[in-house]
Amino acid sequence: MEYKAERLISDAAAYGAQLIVFPEAFIGGYPRGSNFGVTIGSRTPKGKEDFRKYHSSAIDVPGPEVERLAAMAGKYKVYLVMGAIEREGYTLYCTVLFFDSQGHFLGKHRKLMPTALERVIWGFGDGSTIPVYETGVGKIGALICWENRMPLLRTAMYAKGVEIYCAPTADARDVWQASMTHIALEGGCFVLSANQFCRRKDYPPPPDYIFAGTDEEELSPDSVVCAGGSVIISPSGTVLAGPNYDGEALISADLDLGEIVRAKFDFDVVGHYSRPDVLSLIVRDHPTTPVSFTSAAPKTESFQKS
Amino acid sequence: MEYKAERLISDAAAYGAQLIVFPEAFIGGYPRGSNFGVTIGSRTPKGKEDFRKYHSSAIDVPGPEVERLAAMAGKYKVYLVMGAIEREGYTLYCTVLFFDSQGHFLGKHRKLMPTALERVIWGFGDGSTIPVYETGVGKIGALICWENRMPLLRTAMYAKGVEIYCAPTADARDVWQASMTHIALEGGCFVLSANQFCRRKDYPPPPDYIFAGTDEEELSPDSVVCAGGSVIISPSGTVLAGPNYDGEALISADLDLGEIVRAKFDFDVVGHYSRPDVLSLIVRDHPTTPVSFTSAAPKTESFQKS
Amino acid sequence: MEYKAERLISDAAAYGAQLIVFPEAFIGGYPRGSNFGVTIGSRTPKGKEDFRKYHSSAIDVPGPEVERLAAMAGKYKVYLVMGAIEREGYTLYCTVLFFDSQGHFLGKHRKLMPTALERVIWGFGDGSTIPVYETGVGKIGALICWENRMPLLRTAMYAKGVEIYCAPTADARDVWQASMTHIALEGGCFVLSANQFCRRKDYPPPPDYIFAGTDEEELSPDSVVCAGGSVIISPSGTVLAGPNYDGEALISADLDLGEIVRAKFDFDVVGHYSRPDVLSLIVRDHPTTPVSFTSAAPKTESFQKS
Amino acid sequence: MEYKAERLISDAAAYGAQLIVFPEAFIGGYPRGSNFGVTIGSRTPKGKEDFRKYHSSAIDVPGPEVERLAAMAGKYKVYLVMGAIEREGYTLYCTVLFFDSQGHFLGKHRKLMPTALERVIWGFGDGSTIPVYETGVGKIGALICWENRMPLLRTAMYAKGVEIYCAPTADARDVWQASMTHIALEGGCFVLSANQFCRRKDYPPPPDYIFAGTDEEELSPDSVVCAGGSVIISPSGTVLAGPNYDGEALISADLDLGEIVRAKFDFDVVGHYSRPDVLSLIVRDHPTTPVSFTSAAPKTESFQKS
Amino acid sequence: MEYKAERLISDAAAYGAQLIVFPEAFIGGYPRGSNFGVTIGSRTPKGKEDFRKYHSSAIDVPGPEVERLAAMAGKYKVYLVMGAIEREGYTLYCTVLFFDSQGHFLGKHRKLMPTALERVIWGFGDGSTIPVYETGVGKIGALICWENRMPLLRTAMYAKGVEIYCAPTADARDVWQASMTHIALEGGCFVLSANQFCRRKDYPPPPDYIFAGTDEEELSPDSVVCAGGSVIISPSGTVLAGPNYDGEALISADLDLGEIVRAKFDFDVVGHYSRPDVLSLIVRDHPTTPVSFTSAAPKTESFQKS
Amino acid sequence: MEYKAERLISDAAAYGAQLIVFPEAFIGGYPRGSNFGVTIGSRTPKGKEDFRKYHSSAIDVPGPEVERLAAMAGKYKVYLVMGAIEREGYTLYCTVLFFDSQGHFLGKHRKLMPTALERVIWGFGDGSTIPVYETGVGKIGALICWENRMPLLRTAMYAKGVEIYCAPTADARDVWQASMTHIALEGGCFVLSANQFCRRKDYPPPPDYIFAGTDEEELSPDSVVCAGGSVIISPSGTVLAGPNYDGEALISADLDLGEIVRAKFDFDVVGHYSRPDVLSLIVRDHPTTPVSFTSAAPKTESFQKS
Repeated sequence: MEYKAERLISDAAAYGAQLIVFPEAFIGGYPRGSNFGVTIGSRTPKGKEDFRKYHSSAIDVPGPEVERLAAMAGKYKVYLVMGAIEREGYTLYCTVLFFDSQGHFLGKHRKLMPTALERVIWGFGDGSTIPVYETGVGKIGALICWENRMPLLRTAMYAKGVEIYCAPTADARDVWQASMTHIALEGGCFVLSANQFCRRKDYPPPPDYIFAGTDEEELSPDSVVCAGGSVIISPSGTVLAGPNYDGEALISADLDLGEIVRAKFDFDVVGHYSRPDVLSLIVRDHPTTPVSFTSAAPKTESFQKS
Repeated sequence: MEYKAERLISDAAAYGAQLIVFPEAFIGGYPRGSNFGVTIGSRTPKGKEDFRKYHSSAIDVPGPEVERLAAMAGKYKVYLVMGAIEREGYTLYCTVLFFDSQGHFLGKHRKLMPTALERVIWGFGDGSTIPVYETGVGKIGALICWENRMPLLRTAMYAKGVEIYCAPTADARDVWQASMTHIALEGGCFVLSANQFCRRKDYPPPPDYIFAGTDEEELSPDSVVCAGGSVIISPSGTVLAGPNYDGEALISADLDLGEIVRAKFDFDVVGHYSRPDVLSLIVRDHPTTPVSFTSAAPKTESFQKS
Repeated sequence: MEYKAERLISDAAAYGAQLIVFPEAFIGGYPRGSNFGVTIGSRTPKGKEDFRKYHSSAIDVPGPEVERLAAMAGKYKVYLVMGAIEREGYTLYCTVLFFDSQGHFLGKHRKLMPTALERVIWGFGDGSTIPVYETGVGKIGALICWENRMPLLRTAMYAKGVEIYCAPTADARDVWQASMTHIALEGGCFVLSANQFCRRKDYPPPPDYIFAGTDEEELSPDSVVCAGGSVIISPSGTVLAGPNYDGEALISADLDLGEIVRAKFDFDVVGHYSRPDVLSLIVRDHPTTPVSFTSAAPKTESFQKS
Repeated sequence: MEYKAERLISDAAAYGAQLIVFPEAFIGGYPRGSNFGVTIGSRTPKGKEDFRKYHSSAIDVPGPEVERLAAMAGKYKVYLVMGAIEREGYTLYCTVLFFDSQGHFLGKHRKLMPTALERVIWGFGDGSTIPVYETGVGKIGALICWENRMPLLRTAMYAKGVEIYCAPTADARDVWQASMTHIALEGGCFVLSANQFCRRKDYPPPPDYIFAGTDEEELSPDSVVCAGGSVIISPSGTVLAGPNYDGEALISADLDLGEIVRAKFDFDVVGHYSRPDVLSLIVRDHPTTPVSFTSAAPKTESFQKS
Repeated sequence: MEYKAERLISDAAAYGAQLIVFPEAFIGGYPRGSNFGVTIGSRTPKGKEDFRKYHSSAIDVPGPEVERLAAMAGKYKVYLVMGAIEREGYTLYCTVLFFDSQGHFLGKHRKLMPTALERVIWGFGDGSTIPVYETGVGKIGALICWENRMPLLRTAMYAKGVEIYCAPTADARDVWQASMTHIALEGGCFVLSANQFCRRKDYPPPPDYIFAGTDEEELSPDSVVCAGGSVIISPSGTVLAGPNYDGEALISADLDLGEIVRAKFDFDVVGHYSRPDVLSLIVRDHPTTPVSFTSAAPKTESFQKS
Repeated sequence: MEYKAERLISDAAAYGAQLIVFPEAFIGGYPRGSNFGVTIGSRTPKGKEDFRKYHSSAIDVPGPEVERLAAMAGKYKVYLVMGAIEREGYTLYCTVLFFDSQGHFLGKHRKLMPTALERVIWGFGDGSTIPVYETGVGKIGALICWENRMPLLRTAMYAKGVEIYCAPTADARDVWQASMTHIALEGGCFVLSANQFCRRKDYPPPPDYIFAGTDEEELSPDSVVCAGGSVIISPSGTVLAGPNYDGEALISADLDLGEIVRAKFDFDVVGHYSRPDVLSLIVRDHPTTPVSFTSAAPKTESFQKS
């Protein structure tokens, strides 16, 4: 996937892109259609082995893959927002990685709340990885897939001043577009949603890999299993590019940040249009770990989460 | 407006409606296009007189108009959600009134945050009037117009268990539809948005009443100044009726409350899909008054606000 | 003083007055210039005797004088706001009495805080007598003299909805006018300030009665010792009548209550222009008595204060 | 405006001033007569663009302009009270900045309640910025324009012990003088009201900038659109300087703080002339923010609003 | 004793008395020096018999002795305040009886708290018998002996408006005079204290009756065992008559009620010199009975206390 | 006055005193005979200036004078009860300060109710400063001058367990002694009353300072204007020392605390001799302030009253 990533980054940079957003789980993969042999009350040996393989394809953060992605960002002088599966010990996280155009890894966001069966393969992020970065092209942050449907989490992003709100996703339904438009209006920000476009043949063939949610027999290798629909929307709700459902594609738009202030004149969700006397949100953004050690300095010989 | 209200209620009830939602400010009126003679640093005498007239057409809650609306609800055996301009002393509020099908006035919601120039003619509600009523047809609540864009306020409604989320509004733009769809998905609830349909001739002619925001000369008496767009959407984002932009109309749909549980299986914003360890919202729902009197019972001979 | 009161009421009623406001202490008298023989650490026998006489000229409320005043209000069909010295046991209060045009005594306001030496001759009212009465001519209340300088007390009046704010006073200074104008603007109400006009000869001659604050020798019988300055001001700060400093006089004005709503459009001190989330006033309006008896009804055979 | 500020500060300091008060919105500007294209129910594109420009001329607090103002205060050895438009994210506040004569920025007051159309361009302050500073020339605080008409807010200032009460304003009406005199008496403090003096030509010419509240055609470039009226009043209500309506001017007075104690002998609004047993004001002076983050220190790599 | 009472009343009336006060327990007797055979842990048979005799000499209220006393008051046209031992069932009370000059029994006061060994022979009164009667000679009430040392009980009397405060007593010590003077000052009332004057011979001789507290042998029949000391004091603390320690005597004074108002000018304990906001006394003046019957009307055939 | 205080403390300590009580207003002064130019309805400029001077001689609590007094108490190893005029903002209070023998300031009592003209120069204390301190020499408290005539306030002291009841005063009349004796009996406590001894020459000469209550001409410089009369009384009413009316003097006595229990055997006003079922006193001992701020800690840069 890193090779594909570099190809796409190179193309976009050639096109003039300053900021490039990839879909959810671009690195490590989104095992669409798999059920990991899980039913209520049992897991199959094959499902466990499927997880072992999936675990082995995830990346450490930081780690060598992160270094390579940083190098690409620096080489092509682009800000990079990349979906990846992160491995910490034996738990995986659906993560977004941020890089600046000088080739630095800025940090990460871990998906707070996986959806449905994702809860079986991914852990849950905490409040310490909801960053918004002030960059040369604006204030950038990202929420992943249905996290974007969480109103309190979005509000935390707005409070951090997000201007370019990235929404890497795996949801290709029509109603996704309504949410993207709504968020642009609600947050007074640009919304850049990048979704996967995949066909059946992008996954291993059966019986190795079964699309359990549908009738495998109805699927040909060219069947589209995720239809894309990436989109760019302005703070006033105007669709600037996309949604594209036709195939793998690069969409782009020029963003006039002045649009934000014009939109916030009408509605500033964390400013003049808030009612902090009635409604106040507390964001616990300290790291939470099951075990913490009271010695101030981490011992070099031991692994510590935070 | 009460005569018109009764006619529309009668029609809807004849059609089989059990719950009827009217637009924002149906009683008392929405002075679209007026600027009340306000500029930065001054108000004109005509603007003040405009306000005096507007004040005189507002209603007291409770009061005789509320009693008549309650009687209508009882007569036609419908739950009624009615936008009205409420007068308390010399301040007006943009309010929604709730009535049950036995003819009782249930209570009210006051708009928390008026939009733009509305802040000059309406006061600000507080946290004590954000009700959700459990009724024979489901749990009913309402937010008004751009309040629906306030994510913390919507979350308060979700936490109160709203099932039939009413959105009386004065916004006829296309992007309003995106927000309505998003809210249905986000909240896992039915959304019933009722908007005004008005033509220029529904307002007094110039020079008595000027549409300041547009060029009056471009308006004919039949010009549509608010195009409607009422809509009913299911918890899965399916549009069940509307949006209708063609004229004054009644739209209706049968609501299957079972849809809510099917939708919440995927996404329960205040349940399994919340992260209270990270994000918690405080709603201050006590009444706030500038002056409170410690004696419980107001003396009969004197007028007391609280 | 009752004879004079009736003459003045009769004159004003003939003039068409519907509401008549008298100065502070019109009944019972304002012992201007007296010092009641009080210095730090001592009281003279003459001062005590002066007080005994002053005590004997005060009235009980209710009592025969109150009944006669009520009858006058009924006879001349006027609302009446009358300053009086009230006697309860051996303590006096500076009180305003309210009567309606049907001849009923409505109730009273006791001055909360006497000024300077007044604290030696008058007791202190409590929060239970700050009434505002809804009448046929508007909502009427009164504060006395420098009580009008107490911002929290005024705010209590505004919260009770006062529309016709009466200010019986004994202050004839120029700056009093500024306060009256300010109150009209602040409260968005009509202000009716009635002040005493007195000459030296209205008091007993020396040595019986000494004007201690000035040089008695500089006073001729015709010297003006309180110059009046009664005034009527509209909610927008326009002076409608007065101030009159020329002698005993009746001033009058027609009040257009519509002015209140026009003024409150700009500034509603207890409505849209309040900030109850930041600033909230508690008014303890229960009666406070040093001793209370738990039996509800006083026994007929015994005298009970409360 | 900073150049003009420095010139005026230099002039006043040369005159011997120790404390200099500027009008409301001196930095950032008061867009008198503008209506920002706002009517009930709509905002025009030009109005939004007007706001974008206005937003760009506002200042961050703290920020470079604040540093330059602090330097001026230090250079000329004056206490400085400066009206400014403050930008926080996309919401603006009408703010007063305080500087000491050593060149330190002391803090700020944000207008709690904007008036009329100001509510569309400015946000609402909270209880955390109502400071009174103990300085070498007395205890200094400021309320802005019609905030001065809020009795509970004034009382909060009195309770903090304000001795030199500054009232930067944009109100040139005659009745403003009555309020200033009243406040001096009520608070037993010196009142320094600084108002704007502007002509039509101080604003851009039409059609770029329209005085919507008046007939533009009636305005010549020299028409006075705000007539000043700055004034200095003693605790006993004596006008010490001004009001000046003739043009841009510096008015000054020597303040004898002994006047305060002489005045409070008569009337101490938060001392001997209060009735805390009956009337008590609660001031909620904690900051209120729509979103708060539990981590004490914002992370350096991310932008955080609060 | 009734014969002696009539003789004394007749004498006083001839002297011009309008109000006559007798000492504590004048009727029924004060068994001075007796110990009723009571020691810790035992009572002697003689003591029990002593009590039986004492019980038999007490009177029922109402009852024939009360009727005779009323007749005397009417015959001599005097108000009468008479100490008596009251019998109710098998419990005795130390009581004061009040009669008017028309020969009516007005009511009674029962001693609330007996002193020391009195607690063995007398019951405890309750709050329902603390009367103050408005009479032709002023407002009259009485507390008995050391009840007068109870500050809360005195305050209840003051609150009921007592003007002529009667203090029947059995205390002849010098310090009693200090308390009487203090009460006159504290209450701003006239104090009339009537004490017993008795010699040893007024009691049965030993061994029938033993003065246990002293050495009987030191007592001759003429020994004074209670020295009187009746006194009349004005509200300003001036002793008007007495104290007389020389023998049985009538003391008298003319009371100028105007003295009360002169004194209260300085100090009105339940008026201007109270602080009801800080200190408030609750008086439970309902009758308290160990058994109460819920039927509203007392059955004629049964005895009921209240 | 501090020098004189130290001299007197030094003398008393040399004499063996462990507790030293000074008269009312020893620090700051008692402006006997002054009338501060106050008559009903007016104050003279000279009176206001007199107040300004008096205000400037008062002390802040805590403050440097309090620290010096604490140091004296520590240096001479005495408990110290000191009358002082306290300044809070622009209102003065008649206060008693308490210090322990280790040199700590314990706290203060503010006079609840000033007498007569004192109400013009002093504010009113509240229920939060009625302390009784448990010390090495007994439980100590103080009421000031005529507060000692307030039965409910004394009862509050008794309830707090006062053993050494201090009564700093300015009253030299004979009847004061009666009250002191009564209080010792009533409260079962030692009473230590310290009064001022002053001659005319202790005050400035006329015309600067006028003894308005008397004929100045009758006063020679040596005329005694307050005759002292300090006294120490035991719980049984025995006068242990004083009263001394001859000049400035130190009186002293050894106090045997065992006397208290002997006296309470007879009469325990808040114990066995109370009747809480009938008479109960409520003491509201929370501080009352006209304005309270919700933030716990005052910000360092601003002055805050509460």
